[in-house]
Amino acid sequence: MDDCIFCKVIKGEMPSYKVYEDDYVFAFLDIHPINPGHTILVPKTHTTDMREMDGEIAQHLMSVAQKIAPIIAKQVGTEAFNFTSNIGRAAGQVIFHTHFHIIPRFSTDGYEHWHRDGDVHEDLTELVEKIRESLE
Amino acid sequence: MDDCIFCKVIKGEMPSYKVYEDDYVFAFLDIHPINPGHTILVPKTHTTDMREMDGEIAQHLMSVAQKIAPIIAKQVGTEAFNFTSNIGRAAGQVIFHTHFHIIPRFSTDGYEHWHRDGDVHEDLTELVEKIRESLE
Repeated sequence: MDDCIFCKVIKGEMPSYKVYEDDYVFAFLDIHPINPGHTILVPKTHTTDMREMDGEIAQHLMSVAQKIAPIIAKQVGTEAFNFTSNIGRAAGQVIFHTHFHIIPRFSTDGYEHWHRDGDVHEDLTELVEKIRESLE
Repeated sequence: MDDCIFCKVIKGEMPSYKVYEDDYVFAFLDIHPINPGHTILVPKTHTTDMREMDGEIAQHLMSVAQKIAPIIAKQVGTEAFNFTSNIGRAAGQVIFHTHFHIIPRFSTDGYEHWHRDGDVHEDLTELVEKIRESLE
């Protein structure tokens, strides 16, 4: 897409710190990293988010993530990382080209996880039935 | 694994709100949800995290995520969701059986994203070269 910043990165029309590239996916360092080594992994074909991504490309992207994420983390001195995608504005998506974050993590980095109540045991039967019916 | 809580859920030795199951993966509602519809998607075969997960199963899990996540989000009244895995204790992993979170998101849910500096343009050349060499 002409006005998509990630499409421009993929085509080389914008400079990037390229980590990995093959026929279907492209990975580059985030220039506003949450932690050192923060990498963005994208399919080359433009789609808005993972809901629209071609199934075979999604599968390939997962294989690439399995391969590159541990190596990226290791190169910045850790084993831990988050592998995450934000789908939709309310989920924190800012660039509307499907992308996955690989974020190396350190026990001292201070990022807090979202709060969970310790003892919610709400009855979820109705919700789970609704979801299962929609999946049938 | 005998002492793994997710293995027990998969085998039916612990009750769960099952959302989806096939030969390779299992999905169930998180009973301490970050938001309504928060779902955990796991491979049936025990591995510690996605680094160890069999490649074909990882690919299949991605396909299942693409299928079920939008439906789960829709059933709780949103289109947005996070698809995420925490690998290693420093990344927030608590249960050491590979798992992916599907977290429906709402613009009003108040969860904040991790801080990024607006204008970091550090030279990442050295780091990207180290990573690329390790990937060769």
